[in-house]
Amino acid sequence: MLFSSANTLDKSIPVPLYYQLKKIILEYIQVNHKNLDESIPTENEIGEYFNISRPTVRQAINELVVEGYLYRIKSKGTFITKPKIKQGFLATLDNFYSEMNRQGLTPSTKVISVTEIESDKEISDALSLPVQSKVVKLSRLRYADQDPIVLVTTYLPQGKCPDIETKDLENRSLYEVLETDYQYRIASAKRSIESVLATEDKAEALNIKKGSAVQYIESKVYLYDGTPIEYSQAFYRGDRNKFAFEVKSE
Amino acid sequence: MLFSSANTLDKSIPVPLYYQLKKIILEYIQVNHKNLDESIPTENEIGEYFNISRPTVRQAINELVVEGYLYRIKSKGTFITKPKIKQGFLATLDNFYSEMNRQGLTPSTKVISVTEIESDKEISDALSLPVQSKVVKLSRLRYADQDPIVLVTTYLPQGKCPDIETKDLENRSLYEVLETDYQYRIASAKRSIESVLATEDKAEALNIKKGSAVQYIESKVYLYDGTPIEYSQAFYRGDRNKFAFEVKSE
Repeated sequence: MLFSSANTLDKSIPVPLYYQLKKIILEYIQVNHKNLDESIPTENEIGEYFNISRPTVRQAINELVVEGYLYRIKSKGTFITKPKIKQGFLATLDNFYSEMNRQGLTPSTKVISVTEIESDKEISDALSLPVQSKVVKLSRLRYADQDPIVLVTTYLPQGKCPDIETKDLENRSLYEVLETDYQYRIASAKRSIESVLATEDKAEALNIKKGSAVQYIESKVYLYDGTPIEYSQAFYRGDRNKFAFEVKSE
Repeated sequence: MLFSSANTLDKSIPVPLYYQLKKIILEYIQVNHKNLDESIPTENEIGEYFNISRPTVRQAINELVVEGYLYRIKSKGTFITKPKIKQGFLATLDNFYSEMNRQGLTPSTKVISVTEIESDKEISDALSLPVQSKVVKLSRLRYADQDPIVLVTTYLPQGKCPDIETKDLENRSLYEVLETDYQYRIASAKRSIESVLATEDKAEALNIKKGSAVQYIESKVYLYDGTPIEYSQAFYRGDRNKFAFEVKSE
């Protein structure tokens, strides 16, 4: 059988059986993360193996689906979700490419659009520009292997990076272009992170269901003299991203 | 009328009317964040004011509801969501109390339960303990003014903080108790942050709908010699929390 024999249900303790089962399946998932194409055993198989009722099995699996560890495909079975990508960029100015490479994933970027727009109040405030200034709006979808991971819209002061729309932003990182082609040195970033639900357009771009959990990260990036050089709004798939960092006491 | 006269819809530009309206309502929300008990104008009123169709108004409002700026109460109207609390704790070891106080909110804590349990694999790994070690499990619900903000379950090695269940953890912070009563000095924390959907039990505790966006933050807290002293799992309401921090280039 597929479950480790070390794990059994204990009917004598006051912990609900579905909860004990959930923990066992969770361990199974952690061990079997590589076998993403295989489905887990059926509810019947699990029920028979542990000699428990189907509703109990169903409750354990339902919670694991809601919590994102498993997903169901109709008439195919229940599958293990791919592990989350550990994003370290919250704590550094590091970029998407090095982050993905460090984790053995192949990053790629699709430029959806580069347009020149006039800044509204929000963008103007972020970039310390007067309202209706010329701003370059760059929309990119970034992938790890073949999966879309983040949809990011970046606003740059047009006057500070002329002709940026002619640069190869699919094969070079934006920071590299800013540092190499424009001689800017990036000093710091202010970021905020919020948990939101995917709207229809975000869901479509990221290949997830509308109403899925998404991390919304806003960044304002500054040069050494305090000039804002970038304002971006990024939507990370909640099911594939996990942001980690360390804090030290002062 | 309630909208600023500076804002009008421009039917001559290629920006959809619903989107222009959405931006106008968003500005209205930002100005009127204090009047949380008042509903915004009805769809009819907005439609008449701007001379646009009701479906257009509805689309703008729907998106603002999905994005969490507004919420509907049946047969009462559409209301402005309370502003998010800016949490700085990701970047510091600071605690909930000082964070809330800094923002002029009144923090309070309800201890839901304190029990002694045997550690499972997950808790044992986090606290560097053998499996089935004695661990204190502390569940707390923390409020800003009257609203539940975060549900946090903390695991502490029982041997390292005997009798902690007798301490007043509703009026004192856990870190203060660890530092004052047990003479520990906290050195660092490893945190991870994930966007997830609220399961039924989390939703009930946090007074939000099942399936709402939630920030799940896991923390492992260490003493100066590297000993883990705390492992916690916190569920922050997505609609009321925003985590902000600054990153500097190295």
